[in-house]
Amino acid sequence: MCQLLGMNCNTPTDITFSFEGFRRRAGVTDQHTDGFGIAFFEGKGVRIFRDNRPGASSPMADLVGQYHIKSFNVIAHIRKATRGDINLENTHPFIRELWGENWVFAHNGTVEGVGVCEECHYQPIGTTDSEAAFCCLVSQLRERFLKKPSEKEIFDAVVEITSEIAKHGVFNFILSNGHWMIARCSTNLHYVTRKAPFSTALRDDDVEIDFSKYTTANDKVTIITTQPLTKNEKWVKMKNGGYAFFKNGDLIEEIEGTLPEQTHV
Amino acid sequence: MCQLLGMNCNTPTDITFSFEGFRRRAGVTDQHTDGFGIAFFEGKGVRIFRDNRPGASSPMADLVGQYHIKSFNVIAHIRKATRGDINLENTHPFIRELWGENWVFAHNGTVEGVGVCEECHYQPIGTTDSEAAFCCLVSQLRERFLKKPSEKEIFDAVVEITSEIAKHGVFNFILSNGHWMIARCSTNLHYVTRKAPFSTALRDDDVEIDFSKYTTANDKVTIITTQPLTKNEKWVKMKNGGYAFFKNGDLIEEIEGTLPEQTHV
Repeated sequence: MCQLLGMNCNTPTDITFSFEGFRRRAGVTDQHTDGFGIAFFEGKGVRIFRDNRPGASSPMADLVGQYHIKSFNVIAHIRKATRGDINLENTHPFIRELWGENWVFAHNGTVEGVGVCEECHYQPIGTTDSEAAFCCLVSQLRERFLKKPSEKEIFDAVVEITSEIAKHGVFNFILSNGHWMIARCSTNLHYVTRKAPFSTALRDDDVEIDFSKYTTANDKVTIITTQPLTKNEKWVKMKNGGYAFFKNGDLIEEIEGTLPEQTHV
Repeated sequence: MCQLLGMNCNTPTDITFSFEGFRRRAGVTDQHTDGFGIAFFEGKGVRIFRDNRPGASSPMADLVGQYHIKSFNVIAHIRKATRGDINLENTHPFIRELWGENWVFAHNGTVEGVGVCEECHYQPIGTTDSEAAFCCLVSQLRERFLKKPSEKEIFDAVVEITSEIAKHGVFNFILSNGHWMIARCSTNLHYVTRKAPFSTALRDDDVEIDFSKYTTANDKVTIITTQPLTKNEKWVKMKNGGYAFFKNGDLIEEIEGTLPEQTHV
């Protein structure tokens, strides 16, 4: 299995504190060593860094850690390969243009039998179930809406299409178009919203940060991740079948999820 | 205007020597300072680095220079903005998935009146004429061929579609799907093929390299660029309306171009 990290904010924010804790799981504190990737939205553009080397030791990940890129929306992924070889084209996050926007997607879990529809608008480049599922999602969205619909219509359609895909396996994912971020939980996904009054956070590797030094009273930063990255914050554990729609760091819409948590984590 | 750099080889090759000379034109030896980008194919995947800062001083370009990524196909671009703001989404090369492959494109020149077709398969994300032209090209290819046709059919269709676009301005471009590279000239495009016996090349900033130290007798490396990068090699100057199709470092197919060179460089 893999691990996911997402950030959605109302002000451009440096994800380095969270990313440095996260990438330690890719070879130091855990074994997600089959590649890593991180995508930073910048305006309508995306900076995307991927490596088929472990996130903990990749020079590409070192650069990301040193570069302190500030962004409203970031999606990162560390991979423990279950389907598909270890190579660049199988490394998350995946990206496609939809309605003239960059759409970025990362997945944790395995979904069975997402066939490659040869006549579909979007085709997978690699061989993962994850990219096939993403192509299926964006193809169906494009079929339903020739032009970009409202955010509510997008959220509802994403829920409907991905709930169907999720019947065939474990489908935790994070999705963003640079304006909002959707998190979907099958088994493991947590989030926390940091806002005023900001306090000190203690990362699971005992690195401490005082967010009040880096923020203003208006800042809102939501972090979404497979397993909580800090010891002293209240992370919300999402339920199976749960969806959360974030914009400007706020939870705008939610489907709580009703099914009991699956045991095949 | 901008400048282009492409490399197509039969063995994974480090483009650093050419790239370091090329990026000096983005702020040191010339004024192409409105962003740079470089895309390296790796298997079916692509590593793409873009920055809206000058190529000569961008930390992203420093990383590329230090990282010595080896690739069969590379496309790079330094920008002098004529259309579209200076931002990430307007920075070449542009990339789209077509028939389950990454297609990468960079353009030098300006083409007028490439309208955004709202029902087309591919939509531009930024506001450049270049990305609009690329989207027009890949949309028309996908309309003509639901599945990937032969290379000959692709080359012929690219020539036909882009000759039409080129009627509306200056359309020098480099295009690759990771297997081959197509170069199209309106005004300025040169190429050289390096193969055994390899000798010493002298870059225009007087840096010398002895290629025989880094190559085997079977290696073939074609470099395509707006203006020759070395003083002592025989660069082929392409003609207006000329197309060259390279694969494994070889010139496979060519349309020489018959029109006189345009003067509005």
